[in-house]
Amino acid sequence: MNITLEQAQKAIEAALEKSKELGVKMNIAVMDSGVNLVAFAKMDDAWLGSIDIAQKKAKTARFFNMNSGEIGKLSQPGQPLYNIEHSNNGLITFPGGVLIKDSSGTVIGSIGVSGSTVDDDHEVATAGAEAIK
Amino acid sequence: MNITLEQAQKAIEAALEKSKELGVKMNIAVMDSGVNLVAFAKMDDAWLGSIDIAQKKAKTARFFNMNSGEIGKLSQPGQPLYNIEHSNNGLITFPGGVLIKDSSGTVIGSIGVSGSTVDDDHEVATAGAEAIK
Amino acid sequence: MNITLEQAQKAIEAALEKSKELGVKMNIAVMDSGVNLVAFAKMDDAWLGSIDIAQKKAKTARFFNMNSGEIGKLSQPGQPLYNIEHSNNGLITFPGGVLIKDSSGTVIGSIGVSGSTVDDDHEVATAGAEAIK
Amino acid sequence: MNITLEQAQKAIEAALEKSKELGVKMNIAVMDSGVNLVAFAKMDDAWLGSIDIAQKKAKTARFFNMNSGEIGKLSQPGQPLYNIEHSNNGLITFPGGVLIKDSSGTVIGSIGVSGSTVDDDHEVATAGAEAIK
Repeated sequence: MNITLEQAQKAIEAALEKSKELGVKMNIAVMDSGVNLVAFAKMDDAWLGSIDIAQKKAKTARFFNMNSGEIGKLSQPGQPLYNIEHSNNGLITFPGGVLIKDSSGTVIGSIGVSGSTVDDDHEVATAGAEAIK
Repeated sequence: MNITLEQAQKAIEAALEKSKELGVKMNIAVMDSGVNLVAFAKMDDAWLGSIDIAQKKAKTARFFNMNSGEIGKLSQPGQPLYNIEHSNNGLITFPGGVLIKDSSGTVIGSIGVSGSTVDDDHEVATAGAEAIK
Repeated sequence: MNITLEQAQKAIEAALEKSKELGVKMNIAVMDSGVNLVAFAKMDDAWLGSIDIAQKKAKTARFFNMNSGEIGKLSQPGQPLYNIEHSNNGLITFPGGVLIKDSSGTVIGSIGVSGSTVDDDHEVATAGAEAIK
Repeated sequence: MNITLEQAQKAIEAALEKSKELGVKMNIAVMDSGVNLVAFAKMDDAWLGSIDIAQKKAKTARFFNMNSGEIGKLSQPGQPLYNIEHSNNGLITFPGGVLIKDSSGTVIGSIGVSGSTVDDDHEVATAGAEAIK
């Protein structure tokens, strides 16, 4: 199962709504289950450096089928996956990358958000992902 | 002047509408005047290789402030810009990348479309760009 | 639908058999429908430079849902897709990349072969792809 | 001395068997003594991000003629090889990359495994390497 453009746009709309509610300016990327870009939106005046980060967060979540921040706990110095970020042309392993599942729980893609604190990023990504279920 | 997300989404909607009218499956990318991604949409079952090409066409148009196909005439063997495609991490110089101007004629961004013939790609990109004026 | 490891290995075995029949030394790569590597084999003393080419041919076929050599006809100087090879971190657009379809005709992946003439490469790739149907 | 395709496929089969025994889904890569890919297998539903990591682990082991995890001890903050991962287009320095030696103890290649915990990854890689001796 793979996310459709309609679903991806719905996820982005929900993420944009949550961003406005929080008063933050985000970059939002949606990948399909094969880790290919399906939809993207950059809010006006959002950080330019976050265009890439949003995409890498979405990729990271789908690459390992877990939220990006989970990888980040394991990639710290002394932890089992130290410096895993050097793989796959660059991972981003702090929060803001979240899996998108359909109503049956199957992973159909992922969403990555970047532009504010990692807590805000994660909250906005989650709002996007939950709009699909 | 820079394109807004609202304008970019309007361009993408117009490009999607034209794609459906032509019966083609497109990847559509909108860049701002600083050559940064603002919005993207991949239609269901559009070519996976065109995700990158759509973005490179939009970049190419704005990099040199002309439609991507114009560069392609100059980059042929024996022509003045032969193999310019090696610059900027890869240009795409065939049609499908079009400048986006505001009502005063100022360039505010660009749109790149890939997924069908270059004629279709250019027609869809033009439809997207004209929705902004 | 996505190719399984069992199917990918069957395709590689068939390609190896055809290579031995032709007396050539090949590199053989199988990608899934999301353009991710599933299986690979390098015959003893096959060209080292063909390890990458085999993979790029398989990617190119799936990126545009046609045999790699079809793209190459369109990417010549003066043709509509001139220098498309600069996209997607490098395409290989001469023959040797072939789609893999299941018995219903659905694309489930692709196979890329490199190590001999492009005619041999294409013949071996075709033998691999047809072993799945 | 260099690993043959027959040996590489034998290593992969042993690694696949061990993976099934452990109930894990792995990506498995075998490099030759010149650090070139010889064989690869991605188990169904194995992590997509591990396709690259399995290859980088195998490369890392052969680059420095030691198991990948040994490098990881030396690349921690304050240690002599801090951030060596930036070299060679990206190393992966946690366990799962193991040298392959022939019966005389000569290094003939390496195997990299990724898809589970680093302990599982190392165990599966070791099973693959030992199938050659």
